[in-house]
Amino acid sequence: MGITEFALIEKYFYQRASKRKDVILGIGDDCALLSCPEGQQLAMTMDTLVEGVHFLPSTSAEDLAWKAIAVNLSDLAAMGAEPAWLTLGLTLPETNKKWLKAFSDSFFDCAAYYGLQLIGGDTTSGPLTVTIQATGFVPNEAALKRSGAKPGDVICVTGTLGDAGFGLQLASGEREIKSKKRSAHFLNRYNQPGPRVAAGIALRNLATSAIDISDGLVGDLNHILKASGVGAIIAVDDLPISEPLYAECTQQQAIQFALSAGDDYELCFTAAEDDLERLDKALKTTGCVYTPIGRIIGGNKIHYTQNGETIKMNNLSAYEHFKQ
Amino acid sequence: MGITEFALIEKYFYQRASKRKDVILGIGDDCALLSCPEGQQLAMTMDTLVEGVHFLPSTSAEDLAWKAIAVNLSDLAAMGAEPAWLTLGLTLPETNKKWLKAFSDSFFDCAAYYGLQLIGGDTTSGPLTVTIQATGFVPNEAALKRSGAKPGDVICVTGTLGDAGFGLQLASGEREIKSKKRSAHFLNRYNQPGPRVAAGIALRNLATSAIDISDGLVGDLNHILKASGVGAIIAVDDLPISEPLYAECTQQQAIQFALSAGDDYELCFTAAEDDLERLDKALKTTGCVYTPIGRIIGGNKIHYTQNGETIKMNNLSAYEHFKQ
Repeated sequence: MGITEFALIEKYFYQRASKRKDVILGIGDDCALLSCPEGQQLAMTMDTLVEGVHFLPSTSAEDLAWKAIAVNLSDLAAMGAEPAWLTLGLTLPETNKKWLKAFSDSFFDCAAYYGLQLIGGDTTSGPLTVTIQATGFVPNEAALKRSGAKPGDVICVTGTLGDAGFGLQLASGEREIKSKKRSAHFLNRYNQPGPRVAAGIALRNLATSAIDISDGLVGDLNHILKASGVGAIIAVDDLPISEPLYAECTQQQAIQFALSAGDDYELCFTAAEDDLERLDKALKTTGCVYTPIGRIIGGNKIHYTQNGETIKMNNLSAYEHFKQ
Repeated sequence: MGITEFALIEKYFYQRASKRKDVILGIGDDCALLSCPEGQQLAMTMDTLVEGVHFLPSTSAEDLAWKAIAVNLSDLAAMGAEPAWLTLGLTLPETNKKWLKAFSDSFFDCAAYYGLQLIGGDTTSGPLTVTIQATGFVPNEAALKRSGAKPGDVICVTGTLGDAGFGLQLASGEREIKSKKRSAHFLNRYNQPGPRVAAGIALRNLATSAIDISDGLVGDLNHILKASGVGAIIAVDDLPISEPLYAECTQQQAIQFALSAGDDYELCFTAAEDDLERLDKALKTTGCVYTPIGRIIGGNKIHYTQNGETIKMNNLSAYEHFKQ
């Protein structure tokens, strides 16, 4: 980075970081200095988005900034952690003022919305890549892990499934639809997912396990099953599917999207039957809709039912994020 | 990443992370869970190395892994922080088993040497890029900042300066020398710098300011001057220059390297005259050699002396790391 480029980065990023009182020293020294809350653990996650691999070259700067933060917050949400700090590794092929302004505006909008402070990072020249590390807090012993699901537990998901996967097909030109309203819905789900931060916090000490759905329900539920040493039975009629998705697909197509498409960033979690009432109240306070979709059972596989009958689901391969 | 690639990454990285007792949950869930030490603050830093920008395409996997960790630890050292945790964002153009083995062997060698645990990260497809976030601890109020230098303070640097910059010229083919032994010395300084972690810790409550020398002494000292609102006077005869560098350069060339070449990852720090004796004892316990090279004065510029006379130094432009 030359001097001019550095001044631009400073203008658009370093001088704009908001102030949290647990940030003793923010951007501008060799490290950030941070104060940890007593009685809490840190939850840390890092995700990288590479142009042409994780996002289309046509992705707007606004959408990229939002999504880069959101995918990390979704990991914090899946642990029941409260977001606190961000570091940003931004690799840019060129310093385009307009792009940087749009990216940083959206970045700080998203950070402010979730109460995050940018505490540092590195800006480098190279192929467009965004790496974000997010840190959050969770009270000792309260984190939601993948490993606590037990036979008999109810499996639930937040929101609706499949919309983002449909949105990716629209964004990449693989599919076209007439309804502008529905198109906007799908694209928004794909480009600016809303991580379930409040729901994750509400689920502390209630969910027995949790994961965020980034690679598709089946793939991500399988991580819970593996970590917990259990199996699952899913009633595909119960999968929460949005009105727009039903309007654009057959029922079977919609079920396929809901089971295997990724990028929704909803939470999949399990809970003991006895805790469902408390859990329902806790989630209602956050305004987050959720749906029971099955049960944890013994074994290590996922079984499916439709109209009360056991069925086989084929072609449930792992969701491929956009690849050039 | 396909299934096979994922298995490789798991084999070479996730299954090998060592165990620190403050890591409650390491790799394998949505986030790592970490316990913070009481009475300490966290120091966090992130650095990205991009192929063709920050390192030559000919760089070995071993050197790349070492340097990617070392440059981050150097930032922790400059704050006086004790290294604890690493996250690794690794973007790879292909999954080459041999390369991955060499990279991960060196990565864990370096992590073990400095007592670090890899707690998470993200592996993605794309142009070769290594992003590391390092977190360390520093007791409340003990961190070394850039902002505490005062007129009258002595300016010191650890080790010797200029070797890595000379090493870069050898590595890039810009320069050739006959002595294999000296060549190995310079290349090692460039490829596998030794961050001054122990020295940084020893300087707590003794140095009034500190920074690591990544972009060259002049550039980095200027950051201290700007943050502290002071100027400096440097006696160029006092700059610590290694035997090999003197053997390969004229005195003036060696001084130029020492003032403006980067990548040395030594520390530049300031201290009050009255603390020099205590500081000397503290640094001796770490085996770290250091050299007083000047004084903090008023103003906001760096002045230079040679043989007791004020001189002008030209062409002290900011050091450019390797660029394609």
